[in-house]
Amino acid sequence: MLVTIRGRSRPFRTVAFDAEHNEVLLIEQRLLPHEFKVVPTLDFRQTAVAIRDMVVRGAGAIGATAAYGLAQGARAFRGSDTHKFRGYLDTVYQTLKAARPTAVDPVNAMNQVRAAMRSGRTVKEKQALALAAAEEFANEDVRHCEAIGRHGARLIRNGTNVLTHCNAGWLAFVDVGSATAPMYAAQAQGKKFHVFCDETRPRSQGATLTAWELAQQGISHQIIADSAAGHLMQRGRIDLVVVGSDRTLGRTGEVANKIGTYTKAVLAARHGIPFYVAIPLSTIDWNLKSGFDIPIEERHASEVLGAWGSHQRSTRSERPARRAYVRVANPSSGALNPGFDVTPPELITGIITPVGIFKPKELWNRRRELGGTH
Amino acid sequence: MLVTIRGRSRPFRTVAFDAEHNEVLLIEQRLLPHEFKVVPTLDFRQTAVAIRDMVVRGAGAIGATAAYGLAQGARAFRGSDTHKFRGYLDTVYQTLKAARPTAVDPVNAMNQVRAAMRSGRTVKEKQALALAAAEEFANEDVRHCEAIGRHGARLIRNGTNVLTHCNAGWLAFVDVGSATAPMYAAQAQGKKFHVFCDETRPRSQGATLTAWELAQQGISHQIIADSAAGHLMQRGRIDLVVVGSDRTLGRTGEVANKIGTYTKAVLAARHGIPFYVAIPLSTIDWNLKSGFDIPIEERHASEVLGAWGSHQRSTRSERPARRAYVRVANPSSGALNPGFDVTPPELITGIITPVGIFKPKELWNRRRELGGTH
Repeated sequence: MLVTIRGRSRPFRTVAFDAEHNEVLLIEQRLLPHEFKVVPTLDFRQTAVAIRDMVVRGAGAIGATAAYGLAQGARAFRGSDTHKFRGYLDTVYQTLKAARPTAVDPVNAMNQVRAAMRSGRTVKEKQALALAAAEEFANEDVRHCEAIGRHGARLIRNGTNVLTHCNAGWLAFVDVGSATAPMYAAQAQGKKFHVFCDETRPRSQGATLTAWELAQQGISHQIIADSAAGHLMQRGRIDLVVVGSDRTLGRTGEVANKIGTYTKAVLAARHGIPFYVAIPLSTIDWNLKSGFDIPIEERHASEVLGAWGSHQRSTRSERPARRAYVRVANPSSGALNPGFDVTPPELITGIITPVGIFKPKELWNRRRELGGTH
Repeated sequence: MLVTIRGRSRPFRTVAFDAEHNEVLLIEQRLLPHEFKVVPTLDFRQTAVAIRDMVVRGAGAIGATAAYGLAQGARAFRGSDTHKFRGYLDTVYQTLKAARPTAVDPVNAMNQVRAAMRSGRTVKEKQALALAAAEEFANEDVRHCEAIGRHGARLIRNGTNVLTHCNAGWLAFVDVGSATAPMYAAQAQGKKFHVFCDETRPRSQGATLTAWELAQQGISHQIIADSAAGHLMQRGRIDLVVVGSDRTLGRTGEVANKIGTYTKAVLAARHGIPFYVAIPLSTIDWNLKSGFDIPIEERHASEVLGAWGSHQRSTRSERPARRAYVRVANPSSGALNPGFDVTPPELITGIITPVGIFKPKELWNRRRELGGTH
């Protein structure tokens, strides 16, 4: 998507590859929204560190980063001994996998790259196939997001007020995003609409990443406190809710997503406001039988007890902002910090996928079309 | 209530009066929760500034502060000319009234003091009556909160998990508080229970003031993000919701309170969790005919776009914490910041008043008992 730097707009992807220098190029997301910077990783170990330290985050984005990282590692191999190459490549694979041990996307992405490499006979051929497969993985991620956008754009009309929660934007994918895809597609169709971004405490991804994305794209938006959406719905100021999902259960239609998503779904149902979830196919879990089986990560209390921000309040200065944590809460109090919640299917109007919009309960019957293997 | 300073617990009121030095004693609330300090105002002008600059906030607390401020001003008058005294006292009254021009509590409180002064003949008599009336106003505020506690305490049992939003605690009154009153009464009865404090963005009164209060009283509690309550209700971890109110409509039973209250009521109704509002009688509005007529103050965007906190993360240091604002949100984005919302009566299980617990729709029929003049 477009990023404006010193008055000039240029297209960027969250994850890209510089084949000449054999570098993965990542938007340094920990500096956003206060500073925009693309950082290269010089070898696969640096790529793994970037995944581990959350320079890059989001399912599609870390998948593509791992795929590129595997190709980067393969291409750095010197020599033509395929046996040595195989052992070396396993080290690359394990290093990248260990960067986010619970994430499934890097593993799936790297398996695609490895499968593609099998048809090469020489090291050189395998190296070329690795890069081609990584590029294909990244391009497919973009095409899927664009397809979500095509299906979802019809939900947005001129004057629609959209609410979104957290960041399921292009920064979480290679480009375009999931929940944001219908917005970008609607904008491309010339529609004028407004987006309310839930702040999304405690990590404020809505106030930081989603707001930054929409600002770069010139989409009208305002940040609201997570508590404000109910009031705005009551006063008729929200027409549509679109969120992403970390995991959607193919068997039940339940949606796990950032803490607070469920609350927005309950509010939307009360006010008869359509509530949509936009997802790439890779986030559908075809195995779990109940949302109560989804482990809800408890994150560190410090996220709730304080806030990360910048001391620089001016938007004009070119000097990078100094990031700082402030303790907001009473010093002697603790916090409970569940990271995700589960929204039941009866509160979800539709699930926007790359192959169409479905009722949550339809997913299972359409599992072949949706990439399910059952 | 009790405040522990350097390991020793002492009782404090939010607002008190030092008759010997003719000073109003206020807990400096802008320093909480990072520092506890009682500041004296040396004359009525300083008292007005303290109200204006929110050293003290909350309906009951600013009412009592204005009442004491009027007595303080009256007692500073030198001489026995009742005519001059009357003119001087009007200056005192107008100065204190202008400190929070839209608040009704300071005016009501000062009118009580003025009415009491009428039965005095000499300046000296009027000065004594002013102080007695101010003390009576403060004591009545405490008695009302204690009565709310007596009625509400039966809602809390051993093991109850209570959710509250914002701060309707003793810091908003002279003592005891409204939403917190049932908790303090239940604690006095020896009950063991747990309180979840909604952080209450954007001003974080739950994470700062309510959490501080509960910590001082030794009540088990945890701060949660405003988005987390829905998930906790879904998992059966909340049994009761108690909040305060800025304005309750006597004719309809609608409750205006801090933004986010409505959302909690919607969630509680969905999960069959009792939702109570604790109020002193002074916050009942007997005139308005619809909640949609309640003006919803739009507060400054900077509250949503950042956070106030402290750079000192240790709880042990005696050094006062340095307060700082950090900008959290994307620098080029704006915010919408409604300060309050309105909860309809069908979502409210009961309204806890000093004279008993009533259904919201019962208020109008009981208006004489509840101090209504219609």
